[in-house]
Amino acid sequence: MNYPTTIKNLIECYKKLPGIGEKTAERLALATLEINQETLDVFADSILNVKHRIKRCKKCNNLSEEELCELCQDENRDQKTICVVEEPKNVILFEKVGTYKGVYHVLDGLISPLDGITPDQIKIDLLLERIKNDNIKEIIIAVKPSIEGETTSLYILKLLEGKDIVISKIAHGVPLGADMEYIDSLTLEMALEDRKKISE
Amino acid sequence: MNYPTTIKNLIECYKKLPGIGEKTAERLALATLEINQETLDVFADSILNVKHRIKRCKKCNNLSEEELCELCQDENRDQKTICVVEEPKNVILFEKVGTYKGVYHVLDGLISPLDGITPDQIKIDLLLERIKNDNIKEIIIAVKPSIEGETTSLYILKLLEGKDIVISKIAHGVPLGADMEYIDSLTLEMALEDRKKISE
Repeated sequence: MNYPTTIKNLIECYKKLPGIGEKTAERLALATLEINQETLDVFADSILNVKHRIKRCKKCNNLSEEELCELCQDENRDQKTICVVEEPKNVILFEKVGTYKGVYHVLDGLISPLDGITPDQIKIDLLLERIKNDNIKEIIIAVKPSIEGETTSLYILKLLEGKDIVISKIAHGVPLGADMEYIDSLTLEMALEDRKKISE
Repeated sequence: MNYPTTIKNLIECYKKLPGIGEKTAERLALATLEINQETLDVFADSILNVKHRIKRCKKCNNLSEEELCELCQDENRDQKTICVVEEPKNVILFEKVGTYKGVYHVLDGLISPLDGITPDQIKIDLLLERIKNDNIKEIIIAVKPSIEGETTSLYILKLLEGKDIVISKIAHGVPLGADMEYIDSLTLEMALEDRKKISE
């Protein structure tokens, strides 16, 4: 005796999601039974069609339901400044901050020789093409400060050498509200190196 | 700028599940994009139809896709012995143990005056009816050892007073492999009281 087929199927499907094991999947499957049908209709429809509906923006490679994403279509954004990020969810993070008015470029990964991820496996080609075609003026590299991030960042820097583009990298340092005691020494080293003059 | 509609819908739906907040829902929604379409078809179909397909067994109130659940239809099970549990998932737990050969009765809750759950809100009526109609011989009460569990257990005991039925309750005590230091005193008290003679 086990759960009826539909519940068993739900458990198996939930288990395909990251961080969801047998016990959690079981709990989620039983909880699904309690959700109202209206929500379940939307849920099922979204799951069924997510792969068809969600494409990548032809320009910036961000998630989009159209050929070009909302941002690349927006004339109020500065289309000459590109913030280069690793994943689509990084775009949402920067948009939540709300101060950045340029556009983005989603690399879909970082160069990582250890994991066998070479430059041609991430969307650097698309970035170069865009820089050429759209007369881009500034590139802000906003990838995480890891070996992969630094490698990717250096690679892009090298490719753009000699071109008339401002290239910058987001600042690394001590995060606001952090307790100095708990900051690792590499971060402190970066924070020291990137110190900013505040006297007149 | 936010995620495209389908992703936003997925995030909202995942958030309806217990223990899933904004961040996790976002992670699950993006992960759903990576699952193969075949699995997504099954997932969507199960979510859409779970409420139609999953009924309650007319006899024992367990989850079932038919009028009577697998266990109530099984002639190899002892249909005269009922193990009374709180929820459908408890049935699966006992079935995983594999030694119990009787059938079950799912109460769908426990009596809890504090939460306003009265005896008529859980499936005790159905249990009494079944005891009368099916000539039940033994009832094993297997609810959790909490105030609600004890209340429910006493209530059932009282209702069956004077009837020719063996009523028992699963043993409470120190779980196997537990470190004695970490057992609470109420459990120890129960373990002492329910001690079993092992000498000749």
